Amino acid sequence: MKVAYKVWLENDGKVFGEGPYQLLKEIEKTGSLHQAAMVLGMSYRKAWLVLHGIEERLGFALVERKVGGIAGGGSTITEAGQSFLKHYEAFRFEVKGALESIYARHFEPSEGSPKQ
Amino acid sequence: MKVAYKVWLENDGKVFGEGPYQLLKEIEKTGSLHQAAMVLGMSYRKAWLVLHGIEERLGFALVERKVGGIAGGGSTITEAGQSFLKHYEAFRFEVKGALESIYARHFEPSEGSPKQ
Repeated sequence: MKVAYKVWLENDGKVFGEGPYQLLKEIEKTGSLHQAAMVLGMSYRKAWLVLHGIEERLGFALVERKVGGIAGGGSTITEAGQSFLKHYEAFRFEVKGALESIYARHFEPSEGSPKQ
Repeated sequence: MKVAYKVWLENDGKVFGEGPYQLLKEIEKTGSLHQAAMVLGMSYRKAWLVLHGIEERLGFALVERKVGGIAGGGSTITEAGQSFLKHYEAFRFEVKGALESIYARHFEPSEGSPKQ
């Protein structure tokens, strides 16, 4: 047996969780909302709506669009977006550690070490 | 904004979470699987299936049925079930505290106290 979970941020409805996180990481990796959406099997329209819904609820832009240029434009994560992603990653890392250790304390038979 | 979550125990599929917990607490309160199911708006059959599925996956009985008697029988939580509920309650209490404190550390502006 093990612990399983879903954790997200909300404010009168979902604000941010694993789906949007994966979308932002793909945008960071590919430099393109189009490609990120494709990798995740979403339509471009859906990805755009998800992203803009989150930006509205957070109150700042996560992604900025570069139009034209030699590379033909693309999308990059804003500074505020990068900072938000860092907080979220630290948050989810600590959540994972905390939940696993709380689970182990209550549900795993302790071998050798006495139970507190 | 705040943190929201669902946490459950699994082992090749869901073993135990908030729904079954509420069912067991109602059985404890009412002394009856029939009444517990009714309070939760479930059919008796559904409640019975949920309960027996969990008992099978856990490997021990959570509820025992008392047949007949002046009170006409009823259901009570077994000793193993009571112990399991205590562990689960301590687990969910600690999960709540840990998630709220991890969330606050990463997403709430610290007022007065310096950020670590």
